[in-house]
Amino acid sequence: MDIGRLGEIGFLKWLVATHPRVIPPPPLGPGDDASVLGSLLLTTDALLEGEHFRTGEPAFLIGRKALAVNISDIAAMGGTPRAFLTCLGLPSGTPGRALTDLVKGFASAAEQHRLSWIGGDTVRSRRGIVITVTVIGERGRTVLTRSGARAGDGIFVTGPLGASAAGRALLESGWKAGADGSARSPWGPAAATTRRRNTELLRAHLNPSPRVAAGRFLSEFAVASAAIDLSDGLSLDLHRLCEASGAGALVYEESVPIAQATRAWARSARRDALHLALDGGEDYELLFTVPRPKERLLSSWPPGDGTGPILIGRVRPRGEGMRLVGARGRRKALRPRGYDPFLRRRGVDTPGVPV
Amino acid sequence: MDIGRLGEIGFLKWLVATHPRVIPPPPLGPGDDASVLGSLLLTTDALLEGEHFRTGEPAFLIGRKALAVNISDIAAMGGTPRAFLTCLGLPSGTPGRALTDLVKGFASAAEQHRLSWIGGDTVRSRRGIVITVTVIGERGRTVLTRSGARAGDGIFVTGPLGASAAGRALLESGWKAGADGSARSPWGPAAATTRRRNTELLRAHLNPSPRVAAGRFLSEFAVASAAIDLSDGLSLDLHRLCEASGAGALVYEESVPIAQATRAWARSARRDALHLALDGGEDYELLFTVPRPKERLLSSWPPGDGTGPILIGRVRPRGEGMRLVGARGRRKALRPRGYDPFLRRRGVDTPGVPV
Repeated sequence: MDIGRLGEIGFLKWLVATHPRVIPPPPLGPGDDASVLGSLLLTTDALLEGEHFRTGEPAFLIGRKALAVNISDIAAMGGTPRAFLTCLGLPSGTPGRALTDLVKGFASAAEQHRLSWIGGDTVRSRRGIVITVTVIGERGRTVLTRSGARAGDGIFVTGPLGASAAGRALLESGWKAGADGSARSPWGPAAATTRRRNTELLRAHLNPSPRVAAGRFLSEFAVASAAIDLSDGLSLDLHRLCEASGAGALVYEESVPIAQATRAWARSARRDALHLALDGGEDYELLFTVPRPKERLLSSWPPGDGTGPILIGRVRPRGEGMRLVGARGRRKALRPRGYDPFLRRRGVDTPGVPV
Repeated sequence: MDIGRLGEIGFLKWLVATHPRVIPPPPLGPGDDASVLGSLLLTTDALLEGEHFRTGEPAFLIGRKALAVNISDIAAMGGTPRAFLTCLGLPSGTPGRALTDLVKGFASAAEQHRLSWIGGDTVRSRRGIVITVTVIGERGRTVLTRSGARAGDGIFVTGPLGASAAGRALLESGWKAGADGSARSPWGPAAATTRRRNTELLRAHLNPSPRVAAGRFLSEFAVASAAIDLSDGLSLDLHRLCEASGAGALVYEESVPIAQATRAWARSARRDALHLALDGGEDYELLFTVPRPKERLLSSWPPGDGTGPILIGRVRPRGEGMRLVGARGRRKALRPRGYDPFLRRRGVDTPGVPV
C-alpha cells in the first residue's frame, strides 16, 4: 500500500476492497460526491495551506471557498445544504485580521446558501492553517449518483470550464487578488482590459459558485441519470462518472464551453485553452447526463443564475472508452489527466497519467 | 481578535457572539460536545501530527483514538454513534505500513462500536499527517447537555482519572508503545511490575474507551441533569459544565478516583497524582450530574465494562464558584487548569490560567 504510487483513487479503491465490513457500497459509502444517511447527505473536504491555498490569498475568499466546495458536493447529489461543521487548525500567531476574515468568509457563504454553522473544533497547528469542513444536506426527491449514465444519454455541464485553472496560473505567476478577488498586477499598473479579464479568472478560482439550484432541479424532476461536480477536471471527473456507470463517452471538442476571458488569457500565455477546460480542475460546475427522452425537460431550466445546460457529448458503450471529437470529426482518446495530489501536480502544469 | 490571547474558548465565544445569524444557540449550535440536527448528533475533531500524536506512535492506536474521541462526544450527549467520515492529510511518502495500520485502527474502533465508514477526503499534506473525523450519532430518548446541572445534584464520573496524563508523560520521557500499547523502556529491560504499570498508563492515553453504554443509560432513563466528556481535564470540563448550567461545584478531593498505577507512577516520578487527575486531560470518562431524587436509579447501572458511577462532589449555587474539599474539610478554590492549546501547554506541565 504505497499512496505515492496508488494515488488518491487507488488508495480509496484499496480501502474499500479491504474493509467491506465497515465500508458500505455507494451511495451509502464512499465513491460518490456525498454519502447518503437516511434523509441526509454528508460530505467533507480538507483545505491545507500550501496545498489548496497560498499564504497571502484573501482569507475571506478562502473561507467562502472551503464551504463552497463542500456545498458543491451536496449540489452534485441533488441535495439542499442545511448545516456545516468546521475543524480549524490554526497557528498561535495567526493574525487577528486573517482569522476574522476567514470566519466572515464562512459566514458569508453560509448566509448566501442558508446553512447553519452548528459546530466544530479549533486546534493549534504549528504547520500552517488546516481547514476541514463537513456539510450536511437534505436529499432531494431523487439522489443523483455517478452510476446511472447509459449509452445514448446526453452529457451536459452547467457552465464554462477552465477559468479557475487560468486563475490559479495567474496566482502562480505572481498576480495578487484583493479581498473581493480583484486582480492586482505584480509589475505595476496593468491595462484596464487585462485587469478586468484577470479579475474574472481569479474570481472563478477563488470564489466558485456551487450549483445548488441546478442540482435541485435535476433531482426534483428526475432529469439526470448521473451527476458529479467538476472538482478535479472534466477529463478525470467524466472518467469517474463513466467508470461508476460502466460506460464510455464521446465529447465534442467544439462544444466544451470556454469563457472569452479564458481564451484570451490562454492566447496571451501560450496555453491551450481546451487543455485548461478538460484537465484544469476546480470549475465546480456540475457534469450530468440526461436520457434522450428527458432532454426536452431541460428547456424549463430554472436557475436564473447564468447557468445553463450545455450539451458537450454523448454517453457511449463502455468498450468505446472516452473519446474526443475534433472540428473535422477526427476522434482521439480523452485521457483522464485531472488532479490527483499523490501522483502528480495539477493537470495544467504537467501531463498526467491515466488513473 | 487574537487567538493567542483569547484561547480556544475565547475564540469560540467571540465567534458565537459575532455571528448570531448563522450560528444557532446550543445544543443546536456549538457549545456542547455534539450538535443536534433533527434526530442526529454530529461532532468533529482534528488530530495533528506533532500536536495530538507524535511521529512514531503506533498508527493503529492513532486511528482508534481519532475515532474514539469523537465517539466520546456522542456518548456525552447520550447518543449512539452510527457512522463517520474522515479527512486525511497524508505526506506522499507516508510508509505503507503506517497508513495500513492507521486504517486498521479506524476499522477496529468502527467494528467495536458498530459504525459505518461512509466517506471522506484524502489530500496530500507536506506538513505531517492531519486527521479529522466527523461522527454522526442517533440521539437517545433525552439529549444530555452541559446546561442542566442544578444546586444539590450529585457530580459523578464513570472511571478513574489521570492515567492518560501519566501515559503522555511517559511518552514524553522516552518510553515507547508497541502496536498494542505495551510499554517498552528506552533504557533496556525494565522490571516486570514497572512494565505492567506503564502499559496500563500508556493504554489509557493511546487507547481510550468512549463510554457509550454509560451515556445511553443516562439518556434512556433521563438520569443525568447534565453531562460532558472529560477531554481537557476535570477542572476545565467541570468549569464548562458549571458555566453552561449557571452553577458552582464542590469536589471532594478524596473521592476523585485515581488508579493504583497512576498513584504509583506519580510517586516514582515525583508528580502530584491529584493534579494529574484534576488537570491532566484526555481521560474520556463521562462527567455527569444527577438530581438527588434520581441518584437511586444509578444502582441499576448497566454497563458491564468496568465503569461505575463514582460520586465526586455536589453542584452548588453559582456564587460559590468551584471549590475542592480536602481530607480535613479545608476548602480551596478549584481552578480550571486543563488544556487550551492556544494559551499554554498541558495542565500537567505548567500551571494554567483561569479561563
